Amino acid sequence: MALQLARGAVTAHGTIGPMSDESSPRPAYDSAFLRACRREPVPHTPVWFMRQAGRALPEYRKLREGTAMLDSCMRPDMVTEITLQPVRRLGVDAAIFFSDIVVPLKAIGVDLDIVPGVGPVVAEPFRTARDLDRLPVLTPEHVPYITEAVRALVGELGATPLIGFAGAPFTLASYLVEGGPSRNHARTKALMYGEPELWSQLLDRLADITLAFLRVQIDAGASAVQLFDSWVGALPAQDYRAFVQPHSARVLAGVGDVPRIHFGVGTGELLHDMGAAGADVVGVDWRVPLDEAVRRIGPGKALQGNLDPTLVFAPDDVVRRKVHEVLVAGKAAEGHVFNLGHGVLPETDPDVLARIVDLVHAGV
Amino acid sequence: MALQLARGAVTAHGTIGPMSDESSPRPAYDSAFLRACRREPVPHTPVWFMRQAGRALPEYRKLREGTAMLDSCMRPDMVTEITLQPVRRLGVDAAIFFSDIVVPLKAIGVDLDIVPGVGPVVAEPFRTARDLDRLPVLTPEHVPYITEAVRALVGELGATPLIGFAGAPFTLASYLVEGGPSRNHARTKALMYGEPELWSQLLDRLADITLAFLRVQIDAGASAVQLFDSWVGALPAQDYRAFVQPHSARVLAGVGDVPRIHFGVGTGELLHDMGAAGADVVGVDWRVPLDEAVRRIGPGKALQGNLDPTLVFAPDDVVRRKVHEVLVAGKAAEGHVFNLGHGVLPETDPDVLARIVDLVHAGV
Repeated sequence: MALQLARGAVTAHGTIGPMSDESSPRPAYDSAFLRACRREPVPHTPVWFMRQAGRALPEYRKLREGTAMLDSCMRPDMVTEITLQPVRRLGVDAAIFFSDIVVPLKAIGVDLDIVPGVGPVVAEPFRTARDLDRLPVLTPEHVPYITEAVRALVGELGATPLIGFAGAPFTLASYLVEGGPSRNHARTKALMYGEPELWSQLLDRLADITLAFLRVQIDAGASAVQLFDSWVGALPAQDYRAFVQPHSARVLAGVGDVPRIHFGVGTGELLHDMGAAGADVVGVDWRVPLDEAVRRIGPGKALQGNLDPTLVFAPDDVVRRKVHEVLVAGKAAEGHVFNLGHGVLPETDPDVLARIVDLVHAGV
Repeated sequence: MALQLARGAVTAHGTIGPMSDESSPRPAYDSAFLRACRREPVPHTPVWFMRQAGRALPEYRKLREGTAMLDSCMRPDMVTEITLQPVRRLGVDAAIFFSDIVVPLKAIGVDLDIVPGVGPVVAEPFRTARDLDRLPVLTPEHVPYITEAVRALVGELGATPLIGFAGAPFTLASYLVEGGPSRNHARTKALMYGEPELWSQLLDRLADITLAFLRVQIDAGASAVQLFDSWVGALPAQDYRAFVQPHSARVLAGVGDVPRIHFGVGTGELLHDMGAAGADVVGVDWRVPLDEAVRRIGPGKALQGNLDPTLVFAPDDVVRRKVHEVLVAGKAAEGHVFNLGHGVLPETDPDVLARIVDLVHAGV
């Protein structure tokens, strides 16, 4: 519990009420974060930040010095330390497992690397049905370092929940088909529209891999998962439903024993369908106010979001006002997990993030 | 009229009915494009493509060889030829004046260049109130090459309308504040949220410049304008209304003697407010079906859009089906100008664009 006590005095962590008795099998079960995911009453609005473990933290930059991104994702000691850093420093209500979207692809043998300043680069992009053979099913034996890191983390984190992490089939497909990051996803869409059967086979494979990658994390003790479909906002809803949703739904159905968060940036048009894919919590970017998101998504879901990540560069009174607006709009939801509307920008001052945690915990 | 006759036999150009008599002061007045902008009956749905003049055309690439982008925008002979190329080749219903968003800034003396593969790069980004002095009002004397090119074009184009071109204040501000293209517009938003008075002064200046740049084109004979707010989709609607809309509205009000098209990518949340800023035609990206866009925008507007620009890489039957879907959804609008939902991608096969023109003209 030392982790929480570091900022516990400020944020009133750890006093959750009658259900947090010693006999609970999972110490994080009654955390504000998991309660909000389940749409249960919470002592305070829980908050974490996408990319909270990363370049915004000086201790992260120091630890990563001399270690390539993918190497750091495959070393349990580094994954554990990096995942814990923002929990210690910021007092957030959940840890997010430090990894990268392409880690499961690397683990099954896809020749790829993460190039600094560029992103994932795939040596031989996916082109034909023969390339399906390069995508075998992922087993726990492919990723022993994931199991080891999650186990270590769950032990360290105590009552702070750990969120498992994976990229969704569409976004993985985009990296594989484009060969790297893409602005327009033109080749990806060309495959999707032009060869719908091959597309379906590809996304089926990727759904298997993603599901297995999340199951490894859950089996090792992760108490929620976030499925990132970073780039799916490039699709109109009609095509999302036809070409993507069934595959994401299969992943989400397969991890149904813990709360499932589902997020993509620029997905204002897809919020309903991403919820309907089987999410318990729908992540919302900063463009759609949470009360409007509730109307689009419908009942039976919690929401996560959605402070504009650039607002950390604004003066304190603006930050305070915008946090307040998000909290007020979030009251329209059956459950609200405060977050940014996209990942923490590398130039972010961690003190501002800590300040936001305090504002959220203090409430409106 | 030679330009139109080249593809006129295919597309039934130029037979517009009783109003196109010889006494009409503006030969393009009764074009399908301008009629659609005015929400009048049309002989066929008009079509043009954002970035139709550009790298997708081999004749463009050849002409531009050895000439820097900004230089080409300041040479009337090149502007004229480049603007005409897609009209000749594709049979589109309108020409769009070939220029770049930063041309008016360059014209008033801002030290900037367009770096191939990067985009506009501003030597000294906008930081403080003192930088306002570097943004004097634009006069026709700053841009004699624009007047000359528009006059030449209007003469050449005959009954084919010429759309004037300018970037909107927010997007210009982003280039000035960031110093170049930006993914997150973090500095821009920091200025907007953190120094709202300076922000307002900056956008006021840029509105003056943009308005003057469009007026030069209208006075020389452009018969419509498109105000591009390329990046404004990065803002939620509330902040668009507070920080951007009044300035864009002033530009649009100032050019009210010709139809005004207003477009930004990823603006699904802003469509109503961009229409309310004073657009006659609201451009819609591919994420929002046109019938849904009509519901958001409300009555009294025409719509422009919105085929996904990556669909040019799909097989012909998919292109045909998607064009059909856009045309059907567009029937919900009081006027519909067919276009892509964003600019033509450089890798696009011009023959596919010509095929789309034919499909649109043939109708549903």
